[in-house]
Amino acid sequence: MQDQAFTDDFRTQFDLLMRLRRDVRRFRTDPVDEAVLTRCLDVFRLAPSVGLSEPWRVIRVESKAARDAALKNFQAENEQALSGYSGEKAQLYSQLKLSGMKEAPVQLAVFCDDATDKGQGLGAGTMPEMRRYSVVSAVTLFWLALRVEGLGLGWVSILDPDRMARDLGVPGTWRLIGYFCVGWPEELSDTPELEQVGWESRGTTLPVEVR
Amino acid sequence: MQDQAFTDDFRTQFDLLMRLRRDVRRFRTDPVDEAVLTRCLDVFRLAPSVGLSEPWRVIRVESKAARDAALKNFQAENEQALSGYSGEKAQLYSQLKLSGMKEAPVQLAVFCDDATDKGQGLGAGTMPEMRRYSVVSAVTLFWLALRVEGLGLGWVSILDPDRMARDLGVPGTWRLIGYFCVGWPEELSDTPELEQVGWESRGTTLPVEVR
Repeated sequence: MQDQAFTDDFRTQFDLLMRLRRDVRRFRTDPVDEAVLTRCLDVFRLAPSVGLSEPWRVIRVESKAARDAALKNFQAENEQALSGYSGEKAQLYSQLKLSGMKEAPVQLAVFCDDATDKGQGLGAGTMPEMRRYSVVSAVTLFWLALRVEGLGLGWVSILDPDRMARDLGVPGTWRLIGYFCVGWPEELSDTPELEQVGWESRGTTLPVEVR
Repeated sequence: MQDQAFTDDFRTQFDLLMRLRRDVRRFRTDPVDEAVLTRCLDVFRLAPSVGLSEPWRVIRVESKAARDAALKNFQAENEQALSGYSGEKAQLYSQLKLSGMKEAPVQLAVFCDDATDKGQGLGAGTMPEMRRYSVVSAVTLFWLALRVEGLGLGWVSILDPDRMARDLGVPGTWRLIGYFCVGWPEELSDTPELEQVGWESRGTTLPVEVR
């Protein structure tokens, strides 16, 4: 045991956190305490970012107009996605609940500012997508922080990202990373809903090759 | 307190984990126990992935030839990056240690298979980059799992991703997400090295706007 390691008890709970983190689409409608939400959002500032560019930009979607526009965006793209399947797969897809946008008390559109000067481009010269990846890392930490509090997050990606950016009136250099529903999950599970309903299952091994 | 929340003690330790996660570039050269590494890699299988596509592909870079090629790739791109700065910034950049590739006992090149059929494209129609984001989320969980064990991870992105893919002979549909150095960190810190040396500092607030 190295002296910089966390305790065995923490490791056990951390493993449980990994197993119970879910993409949540079924939320209760009761509100989220603002102090708890703020505490969870604070982990963004502890997230890794390329060159310390901190390119994350968060829009809290609160107004009826903004939520309606986001929901319409999802509904249009989800219908389009359904039309790409046929037979049993289409039948199954049509029954999936792929967002909690009608119920989730907190909704966030998270963007990456591709043009930020912060960090002076360090680490993002050959792979400018690193800025977007930084935002994804931050969202992943936020996801875990929410789960620690008992809250759930659902990542909605069945959206036209340009339409979302236009509807929210954000700068042209901002790229949508995801639309996030946050709230109290209806239930807790160690199995993804897509696996429960038979859409797809998780692999049993990690593909690792050696060179 | 909601009944699905973790304990206060866990929350305190989780907060510490967030604060002590670092991008590590200074490693000790002593080996990493295989069982510990396997345990950490196992969190990939618990990571979120769009449509359960699990698009992550891991290459463990072990041979001298493969490591030399990766190091040369980094050195060439780092020199190129340096030439983009001038004056004090160039002076500072030239003194930065931006990878632990010469010392880290474990090195992984992680790719996203953009063409995987797994998940049948669910959630990735309008935002196909979601597959790459899934890999980033998985890497972020792996990063934390390593830190729980006392291990460090360094994300190297100053690389020509196409050259890396060619050098490692991976399929053409695989896109490099990052090259990762893993090992025992020389020291523990709650402050990013780029902040310590004055390259850039972290913000004190998270930018949140309301719509």
